[in-house]
Amino acid sequence: MSGAPRLKVAVLGATGIVGQRLVALLERHPWFEPVILAASARSAGRPYGEAVHWSLETPMPRFAQTAPVAPAGKPCEVDVAFSALEAEAAREIEPLWAAAGVPVVSNAGAFRMEQNVPLLVPEVNAGHLELVRGSGEGFVVTNPNCATTGLVLALAPLHRAFGVERVTVTTLQAISGAGYPGVAAMDILGNVLPGIPGEEAKLEREAAKILGKVEHGAVKPAPITVSAQTFRVPVAEGHLLSLSVRLGRRTTVAEARDVLEVFGRSALPHLPSSPARCLRLFEGESAPQPRRHVGLGSGMTVSIGRLRPCPVQDLRLVALVHNTLRGAAGGALLNAELLAAEGLLRRAPPRPLESSSGGAT
Amino acid sequence: MSGAPRLKVAVLGATGIVGQRLVALLERHPWFEPVILAASARSAGRPYGEAVHWSLETPMPRFAQTAPVAPAGKPCEVDVAFSALEAEAAREIEPLWAAAGVPVVSNAGAFRMEQNVPLLVPEVNAGHLELVRGSGEGFVVTNPNCATTGLVLALAPLHRAFGVERVTVTTLQAISGAGYPGVAAMDILGNVLPGIPGEEAKLEREAAKILGKVEHGAVKPAPITVSAQTFRVPVAEGHLLSLSVRLGRRTTVAEARDVLEVFGRSALPHLPSSPARCLRLFEGESAPQPRRHVGLGSGMTVSIGRLRPCPVQDLRLVALVHNTLRGAAGGALLNAELLAAEGLLRRAPPRPLESSSGGAT
Amino acid sequence: MSGAPRLKVAVLGATGIVGQRLVALLERHPWFEPVILAASARSAGRPYGEAVHWSLETPMPRFAQTAPVAPAGKPCEVDVAFSALEAEAAREIEPLWAAAGVPVVSNAGAFRMEQNVPLLVPEVNAGHLELVRGSGEGFVVTNPNCATTGLVLALAPLHRAFGVERVTVTTLQAISGAGYPGVAAMDILGNVLPGIPGEEAKLEREAAKILGKVEHGAVKPAPITVSAQTFRVPVAEGHLLSLSVRLGRRTTVAEARDVLEVFGRSALPHLPSSPARCLRLFEGESAPQPRRHVGLGSGMTVSIGRLRPCPVQDLRLVALVHNTLRGAAGGALLNAELLAAEGLLRRAPPRPLESSSGGAT
Amino acid sequence: MSGAPRLKVAVLGATGIVGQRLVALLERHPWFEPVILAASARSAGRPYGEAVHWSLETPMPRFAQTAPVAPAGKPCEVDVAFSALEAEAAREIEPLWAAAGVPVVSNAGAFRMEQNVPLLVPEVNAGHLELVRGSGEGFVVTNPNCATTGLVLALAPLHRAFGVERVTVTTLQAISGAGYPGVAAMDILGNVLPGIPGEEAKLEREAAKILGKVEHGAVKPAPITVSAQTFRVPVAEGHLLSLSVRLGRRTTVAEARDVLEVFGRSALPHLPSSPARCLRLFEGESAPQPRRHVGLGSGMTVSIGRLRPCPVQDLRLVALVHNTLRGAAGGALLNAELLAAEGLLRRAPPRPLESSSGGAT
Repeated sequence: MSGAPRLKVAVLGATGIVGQRLVALLERHPWFEPVILAASARSAGRPYGEAVHWSLETPMPRFAQTAPVAPAGKPCEVDVAFSALEAEAAREIEPLWAAAGVPVVSNAGAFRMEQNVPLLVPEVNAGHLELVRGSGEGFVVTNPNCATTGLVLALAPLHRAFGVERVTVTTLQAISGAGYPGVAAMDILGNVLPGIPGEEAKLEREAAKILGKVEHGAVKPAPITVSAQTFRVPVAEGHLLSLSVRLGRRTTVAEARDVLEVFGRSALPHLPSSPARCLRLFEGESAPQPRRHVGLGSGMTVSIGRLRPCPVQDLRLVALVHNTLRGAAGGALLNAELLAAEGLLRRAPPRPLESSSGGAT
Repeated sequence: MSGAPRLKVAVLGATGIVGQRLVALLERHPWFEPVILAASARSAGRPYGEAVHWSLETPMPRFAQTAPVAPAGKPCEVDVAFSALEAEAAREIEPLWAAAGVPVVSNAGAFRMEQNVPLLVPEVNAGHLELVRGSGEGFVVTNPNCATTGLVLALAPLHRAFGVERVTVTTLQAISGAGYPGVAAMDILGNVLPGIPGEEAKLEREAAKILGKVEHGAVKPAPITVSAQTFRVPVAEGHLLSLSVRLGRRTTVAEARDVLEVFGRSALPHLPSSPARCLRLFEGESAPQPRRHVGLGSGMTVSIGRLRPCPVQDLRLVALVHNTLRGAAGGALLNAELLAAEGLLRRAPPRPLESSSGGAT
Repeated sequence: MSGAPRLKVAVLGATGIVGQRLVALLERHPWFEPVILAASARSAGRPYGEAVHWSLETPMPRFAQTAPVAPAGKPCEVDVAFSALEAEAAREIEPLWAAAGVPVVSNAGAFRMEQNVPLLVPEVNAGHLELVRGSGEGFVVTNPNCATTGLVLALAPLHRAFGVERVTVTTLQAISGAGYPGVAAMDILGNVLPGIPGEEAKLEREAAKILGKVEHGAVKPAPITVSAQTFRVPVAEGHLLSLSVRLGRRTTVAEARDVLEVFGRSALPHLPSSPARCLRLFEGESAPQPRRHVGLGSGMTVSIGRLRPCPVQDLRLVALVHNTLRGAAGGALLNAELLAAEGLLRRAPPRPLESSSGGAT
Repeated sequence: MSGAPRLKVAVLGATGIVGQRLVALLERHPWFEPVILAASARSAGRPYGEAVHWSLETPMPRFAQTAPVAPAGKPCEVDVAFSALEAEAAREIEPLWAAAGVPVVSNAGAFRMEQNVPLLVPEVNAGHLELVRGSGEGFVVTNPNCATTGLVLALAPLHRAFGVERVTVTTLQAISGAGYPGVAAMDILGNVLPGIPGEEAKLEREAAKILGKVEHGAVKPAPITVSAQTFRVPVAEGHLLSLSVRLGRRTTVAEARDVLEVFGRSALPHLPSSPARCLRLFEGESAPQPRRHVGLGSGMTVSIGRLRPCPVQDLRLVALVHNTLRGAAGGALLNAELLAAEGLLRRAPPRPLESSSGGAT
């Protein structure tokens, strides 16, 4: 972490749960220095430590406690803006920052499906960055919905090797995915809620875009049909996905396991937030489970288990993704690191890491 | 409740969670009088109130508190024996009672798949009782696994109308399904466990038998392929099922809804434990949920929601079943009532109900 | 339930959790007929079934589903108005109804400590009704805070027999006490919150008033010092109280138990909502607990356990009260029944019950 | 961490929850090297990774996975034996190791109240080590019960400054305190259990010993009367204590706060597991809470909040202790570090730390 100074970043929507994760992740980040914590006009002007309802189990970083909250709607001079805004606010505010020449790395759903906006998971479709290459500095790059992130990391290797055609997926999603105050305790304590508004449509269309190809300056989605049913469960962090997959080419569980293992070991050692493994495979009936496995790879590793043949389609498996890290703040951070490493920001990061350190898996 | 005395019944495995439910349901049953509470040799001889770890939210019936626990392995003179034994014990003990001429109504898994043993859900396949008709008094009738009961009540009307061919089902199952002490709090608090040992195989084979036909003194299973993935969730009572169904004949959601509605209104008004509706349909994204809907029809009504087209198969829906009532003790009781009403017990019940009362739905 | 028609009642604040409980309790009440369901201006005019977020585990009464919500701020011609309003709204709205000549039976905190307002628990201080006797029809009668109700039912017999001087009480309170949406799941899942705002002051002053005496048209509080510390726990219904009590006269646990047992058996058999026992005593270390015992006496019985000598003061015990029934809606209903039975309403109830039925304990 | 090799340690009871914590803490400990993982005869001989039901949220250390489990009953040549045995096993096994000349640092309750056995919390009563000084190598040093540890760290500064005379304490204890499988989910999900067997007696007698003085080779307990009531709550980690304290000398909240603050900053910088602060004070009604604060100081800091005057005694406050770290494995480890630093082990540790690092608070 020598030579060049860290890149200056803003966090838009810094008081929400994903924003808090970003604030925590940026505290000691080797490349990025958080200089603006921005939120709605309601919070603007107050010290961050007072404006936020801090929900993480780790303490609030010291720098954040007294930082004045800036208004998210007023772009500033920074090298990157992270957006953890609500979709509606994002639709209005992110273009302002992009228009001011600031690359926006967004976790919001507002522009994910825009043809010229990369929907990015670095291990899967880094090539989609060509959509923004040469487009000047003001652009938006997005990461997928939290559950989609788990879905697509599990499907990508299978798709490459065998062609994924159809997927039925049932999700069991953590309450942190609904933000704060989010789900009322009266609704979820000892209970399960069927149907998370808007979530199924995201799962059903985002995966195909991510696994698609860039042609003529736009993404042509992969021909994959996804059927999703979502449930909210009384778990703090970690979305589980129960998958049944139809492949274009028949395969065995052993072959599928190999493909997942090999892909799982793929890491992006030059990016500070990349885990040593993007997938971790488990045997047996007791993994993955949120409480035990959600923190693997510092929350950046997707856990896979219960890989079996499916009597109805071809394969069954269960995936677990940390919804506010890999599925949100961590995913956005990894995207920003990829932008920096690819030279898509105005300035270079202090020094690309020379070798993998990553989180342990 | 006039004239003839109530039929005398034994409860085998009376100290377990399903046994407790039976004891509670039998307290004021119009036809059946619990005269024997039997359990393992370890408990035998002690007062039931001391031998049991009572887990229900309603108080222990007064009669049970001081009743001496009988050894389950020693058949007695009763009109019916309810079995809430563990599968292994059931395999040994149920035949002893049947051999002694006692009809056994079992919730255990031991003999469910035997060719000449009815696997019975009265609203669905009462006709399967012909397997035991004329076989003398000592026979075994079983009810399905708790999750299968919900599955088959949801599928039966669709199968009759359109032919069910393939089903992918993901379950979110309550902890009471694992008995007591069952799941350790350390394992499930704020967590989800993937994979309930043995459960998926039951879901995959029992539905086809129940929806099958009796031919030549044995059940010929319906040609339905089921793919099941199971999860344990921190919910006290109520298994949720997330279903995607391939039908033999295409249909619309409206038509499917009609079929489910009509079947749902079917009740067995001559049986005291029959709910006024065996299915209850909900609109919208927020039903069914365990805490709110598990008690409908006194726990005997299966709730259905989120009926939608499935882009991968034909239909999607969510079902909720009370796992220890409709899915276990209540299901067994309804089976015994059907046996009594059909004249398959030695004696007639006090008086068949003249008109529906049933539980409210 | 013959002769005279039922008394017409309004429920103010009918959409909140306590209001919902009242709506459910009034569905088949022998004396009272709910004719007005009133709430804030925001809900007024909409059908109750749409305006409410129904949170009970039992279904919404049919009558309520389509009833139009009336504005709570406009008094109507009814025999009694139940108030389940928030304290602030109650302070403004309850006097309007009283001024219009309607007796208000309030669960709200607004006027509990007013000198001429009875703070009433029928088994404990029915005599305090003399404060409103002869005052005309428009008056306010209140029931205590939910936790205080449990406290005072446990203390009353000890106070009468031995004189309670000082109490330290730690409460473990259910989330339903905070209303809906109330506590965020993110705050309470797998967690405990120390300190419920405003709750401790209520516990510390209400008990002394209830156990006090009416002198010269005002209540002279009993000389009891209470020290309260409150906690919110992830439990749906049922507040636990951990008590240590200093008595004016030394006693033995056996004597204290007798006193509690005798008082516990006191019932008000002429009031429909009175449980057969207002207290239920348990032996051993495993009672009372919310899930097992909160429903005793249809939620109107306070459970007492772990009665032991206290090495620091005199006695220790644990009490459990159903916070939205005995501690709120049920307590208010019992108060209204007492008013009716005492002839303090304009009209007599249909027919006083001739003998106790009460909820089973 | 130079020069001398690490001290060799055994962990007795290594498969239990406290044992697992020790295994995890010892993985990278600068002074101690775990060479023996011992458990009951039932587990002996199997690889640790198979014998254990790993319950921590962090992965099992690599070294432990294949380590063969040794029989706890056979003493080996090590520098220290940590005991995380059940009390009954400890009573039998710990003396065997001590007799073999191995210092035993025990978390078990078996010998805590023996006159010549130090019951040790380093920040509070390091001086009690004189009980074992010069007694040769084979001795037993114990740490208190998990809840007592929190109690005594909160009381110690008040006792020194003002003299604590009487304490009423109600605890809200996490399920991990009951070990594994421990509490059944059916018993605690959405519930609270009153009365943890045996726990109250420990709270009532251990604090007085720890705050006492060594006279004539034995501890003379401080004249403090404790009255404890315990509850089990559905929380994974972290015991809360609600305290009311009578002091020998009246004081103000401000003065008490100062005393707690000053003591709280006391650290033992020469011991690797000492947190930078042993106490952390919070203002307001929302702290401490298990989910947010249990991890402070890497689980070694006790959090204090809600310090207020008590109308019944003198002071009220709430304390939170990480029950399996500070209250068990971490407490034992700190004790062993103190023994090493004081020269009470056969060999010196590799190198005493030169300056505080400790966990952040």
